Amino acid sequence: ETATLDEVSEQLGKWPVCWIHVCGVTDEALVRSLGEMLGIHPLAQEEILNTNTRPKFEEYGRDLFVVTKSATVDREKREIMIEQVAFYATEKAVLSVQESAAHLFIPVIGRVRDAQARLRTRGTGYLLFALMDVKADNILSILDMVETDIVEVEEDLLTGDEDFTIDIIYQHKRTVLAIMRFVMPMRDNAHRLEIIDHPLVKEEDRYFFRDLADNARRAADRLEHARLLLQNMQEYYHLMEEHRNNHVMKVLTIIATLFLPLTFIAGVYGMNFDHEKSPWNMPELYMYFGYPVCLLFMATFFFCMLWWFRRMKWL
Amino acid sequence: ETATLDEVSEQLGKWPVCWIHVCGVTDEALVRSLGEMLGIHPLAQEEILNTNTRPKFEEYGRDLFVVTKSATVDREKREIMIEQVAFYATEKAVLSVQESAAHLFIPVIGRVRDAQARLRTRGTGYLLFALMDVKADNILSILDMVETDIVEVEEDLLTGDEDFTIDIIYQHKRTVLAIMRFVMPMRDNAHRLEIIDHPLVKEEDRYFFRDLADNARRAADRLEHARLLLQNMQEYYHLMEEHRNNHVMKVLTIIATLFLPLTFIAGVYGMNFDHEKSPWNMPELYMYFGYPVCLLFMATFFFCMLWWFRRMKWL
Amino acid sequence: ETATLDEVSEQLGKWPVCWIHVCGVTDEALVRSLGEMLGIHPLAQEEILNTNTRPKFEEYGRDLFVVTKSATVDREKREIMIEQVAFYATEKAVLSVQESAAHLFIPVIGRVRDAQARLRTRGTGYLLFALMDVKADNILSILDMVETDIVEVEEDLLTGDEDFTIDIIYQHKRTVLAIMRFVMPMRDNAHRLEIIDHPLVKEEDRYFFRDLADNARRAADRLEHARLLLQNMQEYYHLMEEHRNNHVMKVLTIIATLFLPLTFIAGVYGMNFDHEKSPWNMPELYMYFGYPVCLLFMATFFFCMLWWFRRMKWL
Amino acid sequence: ETATLDEVSEQLGKWPVCWIHVCGVTDEALVRSLGEMLGIHPLAQEEILNTNTRPKFEEYGRDLFVVTKSATVDREKREIMIEQVAFYATEKAVLSVQESAAHLFIPVIGRVRDAQARLRTRGTGYLLFALMDVKADNILSILDMVETDIVEVEEDLLTGDEDFTIDIIYQHKRTVLAIMRFVMPMRDNAHRLEIIDHPLVKEEDRYFFRDLADNARRAADRLEHARLLLQNMQEYYHLMEEHRNNHVMKVLTIIATLFLPLTFIAGVYGMNFDHEKSPWNMPELYMYFGYPVCLLFMATFFFCMLWWFRRMKWL
Amino acid sequence: ETATLDEVSEQLGKWPVCWIHVCGVTDEALVRSLGEMLGIHPLAQEEILNTNTRPKFEEYGRDLFVVTKSATVDREKREIMIEQVAFYATEKAVLSVQESAAHLFIPVIGRVRDAQARLRTRGTGYLLFALMDVKADNILSILDMVETDIVEVEEDLLTGDEDFTIDIIYQHKRTVLAIMRFVMPMRDNAHRLEIIDHPLVKEEDRYFFRDLADNARRAADRLEHARLLLQNMQEYYHLMEEHRNNHVMKVLTIIATLFLPLTFIAGVYGMNFDHEKSPWNMPELYMYFGYPVCLLFMATFFFCMLWWFRRMKWL
Repeated sequence: ETATLDEVSEQLGKWPVCWIHVCGVTDEALVRSLGEMLGIHPLAQEEILNTNTRPKFEEYGRDLFVVTKSATVDREKREIMIEQVAFYATEKAVLSVQESAAHLFIPVIGRVRDAQARLRTRGTGYLLFALMDVKADNILSILDMVETDIVEVEEDLLTGDEDFTIDIIYQHKRTVLAIMRFVMPMRDNAHRLEIIDHPLVKEEDRYFFRDLADNARRAADRLEHARLLLQNMQEYYHLMEEHRNNHVMKVLTIIATLFLPLTFIAGVYGMNFDHEKSPWNMPELYMYFGYPVCLLFMATFFFCMLWWFRRMKWL
Repeated sequence: ETATLDEVSEQLGKWPVCWIHVCGVTDEALVRSLGEMLGIHPLAQEEILNTNTRPKFEEYGRDLFVVTKSATVDREKREIMIEQVAFYATEKAVLSVQESAAHLFIPVIGRVRDAQARLRTRGTGYLLFALMDVKADNILSILDMVETDIVEVEEDLLTGDEDFTIDIIYQHKRTVLAIMRFVMPMRDNAHRLEIIDHPLVKEEDRYFFRDLADNARRAADRLEHARLLLQNMQEYYHLMEEHRNNHVMKVLTIIATLFLPLTFIAGVYGMNFDHEKSPWNMPELYMYFGYPVCLLFMATFFFCMLWWFRRMKWL
Repeated sequence: ETATLDEVSEQLGKWPVCWIHVCGVTDEALVRSLGEMLGIHPLAQEEILNTNTRPKFEEYGRDLFVVTKSATVDREKREIMIEQVAFYATEKAVLSVQESAAHLFIPVIGRVRDAQARLRTRGTGYLLFALMDVKADNILSILDMVETDIVEVEEDLLTGDEDFTIDIIYQHKRTVLAIMRFVMPMRDNAHRLEIIDHPLVKEEDRYFFRDLADNARRAADRLEHARLLLQNMQEYYHLMEEHRNNHVMKVLTIIATLFLPLTFIAGVYGMNFDHEKSPWNMPELYMYFGYPVCLLFMATFFFCMLWWFRRMKWL
Repeated sequence: ETATLDEVSEQLGKWPVCWIHVCGVTDEALVRSLGEMLGIHPLAQEEILNTNTRPKFEEYGRDLFVVTKSATVDREKREIMIEQVAFYATEKAVLSVQESAAHLFIPVIGRVRDAQARLRTRGTGYLLFALMDVKADNILSILDMVETDIVEVEEDLLTGDEDFTIDIIYQHKRTVLAIMRFVMPMRDNAHRLEIIDHPLVKEEDRYFFRDLADNARRAADRLEHARLLLQNMQEYYHLMEEHRNNHVMKVLTIIATLFLPLTFIAGVYGMNFDHEKSPWNMPELYMYFGYPVCLLFMATFFFCMLWWFRRMKWL
Repeated sequence: ETATLDEVSEQLGKWPVCWIHVCGVTDEALVRSLGEMLGIHPLAQEEILNTNTRPKFEEYGRDLFVVTKSATVDREKREIMIEQVAFYATEKAVLSVQESAAHLFIPVIGRVRDAQARLRTRGTGYLLFALMDVKADNILSILDMVETDIVEVEEDLLTGDEDFTIDIIYQHKRTVLAIMRFVMPMRDNAHRLEIIDHPLVKEEDRYFFRDLADNARRAADRLEHARLLLQNMQEYYHLMEEHRNNHVMKVLTIIATLFLPLTFIAGVYGMNFDHEKSPWNMPELYMYFGYPVCLLFMATFFFCMLWWFRRMKWL
């Protein structure tokens, strides 16, 4: 259910805690009006509207301003879509502005509807926590997806699956880098929110914010681990390729080494020096056991080389 | 509109906030005279004139001295031109000295002309912010360019574009390194300007300086991300090249393995051992089905090897 | 010997120090009831039940909450199984919850049974230390195993063992990464436990907690060393492979260089130009010493090239 | 002009600021006597004499002790010669001890000779600054040289100059590492000198020491940049080599692929199966258009393969 | 001269400073008795006996406990033997326990024997310094050895010595890693000993402890430098190998490219198509200048290809 600006303004004074949620930041005028109504600093308004803002956490006097990112992963195309979610908490209201219209906050909406809910009575600090907690869950579930994918990739790599290409590792590394880029500042922000001394963050909610910061730290941790695994896999792939390459190389060497000399010998006895002009010209061709001896020599040469290759451990 | 030194000196006392802008540092005497007039420390004068100075932020008593860099990218040649912009803020005036004569501060000039502008009334701290903000915008727009280029390079790389060479990655890495070199100290300086306790940085302007520092942090962030992407792309290119190389290697192996033995067999039957001298000399040549059997044997050998290569997964 | 909830509740008041140990976290209701009984914060209960929790150390008012990991290595499959062990210490009781039913704490059980044991009289802080010390021993013994394995791998690598594959290094790196992932936060937690100012950590037990932190630091140290050794081994393997590859390459070059020209010469004298039509057609074939001179020329060519290769240091 | 120990002792009391300069530390007795005269701590004397001392900055009560390094680069041999310069400043005198007899401090000598010079009146702190400033200039001029060389090397690398070898990059990396080794601690020392609260460092000289520290930071910065550039160049060289290698590889593959099958066909028709014994033996040789058809087949085969290679983008 | 436990106990009260040195930790009972006598905490006793303890520095009330490592390098086998040396300093005595029976502290013994020695009068802090200083000298002399070896290895590498193998770099890296492992914590401990506020570390001995810490820092510095040099050498070796490999590759290409086509031509004219059956069958063989023209064609082909290779800069 959507509301007009006037309705919002009217409701604002009535309740101890108000939550105003804006889906899509396309309507700049709306955000500016809400900003005016809630007394949001122009710089914060600017950053709500600019969807390129880095995740940040800032105090504006007695208000708190948090910019976070939410991600959805398209597993088919191995692409990650990031959208911005900004929160601005005053003493009596929390404004949340979301880039797209995706239904991110459904679990909170459910809890808000319940008249006895803790959300209705514990002040805007707790509401801010509840909203950010949904965001953290979103990130952890994306990490689950990413990690599952990486485990699959690793299995393909280790079993030597033929469809495996280095592209897959590259794209996963890219995804992990992209997620890291907004999770790392979010972790720092969550930590600052955990330790901040601010009227909106009440002492009895402290444990919840600590939990939030802990989730963010765990996410950063898992991302770093995923990055290291991918790096490890890439090095392994590189060394495996090299190893395979060397093996093929050896086979080539052996075949060339075996047949090039033999072909040369056959070539010699294919020469047309005229025996009639001189007894020195290719007398072997006219001997009684010339051909069998020649074949025997070739075979001996062949097996000697095989034995030598085996001794050199090339075979 | 340019002014003589006397005019500047005359204007200096009249207004609460003065902005003196010098384009090009070629005229050492002029800078020294202005320095004298505004009471700039000789070391700061030296650094204004030396266009090699590292980005820095320093307090000289009640004055602030900031050295920053501005960049322009020539996208054709993939070259980056960096010029120095130094700011010296006293209580009543801001001196800005720019290395070249490029029109960097046009947006500020426009705002200054407006008689009601905030710039005219808020003191030199706010003017300093306004000038540095233009500089930050310049850097962010250069980052936009660089990132766009990197995305294009990545597309060329992933689609296997034939014109793609490793030179392109190298030059982008070079550009990113060159930008990093002055953005990193600028970020640190902006941070110090954000938290400094100084009469020129008034409490009501604090949010603006925080915004400035935030922009610098975001720029550093994006540069680091760009650097990691390029590193990633280079590793991918390396592995792709290796992979392609290995494939070519395999084809060579297979062709050599297929034809060297066959050529040897043909060579054997091209030998000229004289059958008339002995029945042992190449009796195969005089058999009724000698030639067809020989061809059949060659074909069998050929296909057996093909089958073996397929089993070894080399084909 | 197991106990019902009521028995636990009854015993709780009687003794100065109580230890409640839960094997397996499958029974959520049980953990929740115990949590209720001991006054454990709902967030801590959640984390005890969620076996994915990152190793952490937290104060809940006058209580301490520690989450650690215990590991067992299956050396055959080179797999590492990690299970979670959570501790919650109140003033009068310590609750330990273990993911599996493995007999981790047998040494502590033995000491508890002894009526004169220090464990019975020194408060829950010392009991917490005793339990965590067992955990630290578990990790150090796993490190012993890992390091022994790495030394063996290194020996195989340096002696050029034929069974050695890059897979082994890869899997060890993976194991070390996995252990690092929980040891690193455990080290930080142990350090915080060492320096914390908390009623449960008494001054006379301080040296024991310092020892615990020291063990954790040593474990982290050894892991980092193991990681560096494996990295070093991988680089060595890479360079050795390359070196071997180059050697094989050289042999190929030499054989090709030796026999391709000779084969060409033999091919030339295998041509069938008709001497009868013209004295210019292959007169060499009809010379008196044609064949011996040809062979001599081939041999000279062969040995000249051998000498050249030796001078180029390719042989 | 040199002086005897007695003369030095005599002059020491007369003037507010004394500068004693020792060239070459070969005369241990002399340094010890001067040390005695100025009250230098035995440990500092030791370090002055030991030319292996790491750059350091230490307070000995009311005295300051600084060990720095000075470098000269032999561009022909690409070698760097490092010599130690130690300063010991008491309230009334500065002792500088230089490892070699090179004329490092000529600019300071000139300024000291001038009777009105600031150096004569501002105390030993300023004299210490003046001497260290000369040293900093020496390091910056060496960096200029190194950077110029690196730019030249890069040009050679990018234009594919034939004389370019990887040795050059290696030796530059070595030089940069060697310079880094003493510049990094010198930067830290300069920073400590900047912020120290010490009677010899007067408030009015503070800006000069800040400038000194800034120069050291800039030097460290440029070295790090040079190191990254060299690393970048090395990676580029590596990838270029690989690329060239792959190209040569492809040409080999193509030539082998083109001629090995053709040679095999020619070999087949060089076999001597006797047509008279059987019509099945090489009937092709006796057909009317045998030879032209054979040549045509070879040419067709040749061009088909060429077309295939072009389609595979190997050509 | 060794002493019984009773003698030690008797001497302990008599002198202001006592030094008890235990060679070899095999006799656990002895260490325990001495520990009892000097009031050493059980945890410290444990760590003295456990020769695996990480280098550490700890305060036990008014006592100091230091665990360090001493190393000897077997240059033939390129192995490093590490032994533990623990110090426990009380107000009146220093206990030093060494793992082996090597004569480490001979210089200190000499100085102790001298009745006027500073060691006898300055308290246990100074004695502790004197003992640790011997240990630091041991480490610096080992670094000298390692660095000399590395310089030799580098010379072998740069002059292209044939005996040079990658094994040597690997083993040096291993040695450096092993030394780093105990030098790094020793540096941190020396730093803490430098800045500690403790009754055993008297103000007048402060400079000596600073010197000790400085030596440790220099050792860490030199190790890091050695590590970087070895890394640099390894990369250089890798690139040199690659370069050499590419050169050999080129020679192979050129030889194959030169002779495979020529061999094919010779093969063609070795075919036995019957000229008598048809004038189209190999008419070249029956031409008057057939053979010389054929040879000329081959030679022209050969030199054209040579010229092409030179133009491609492959030769």
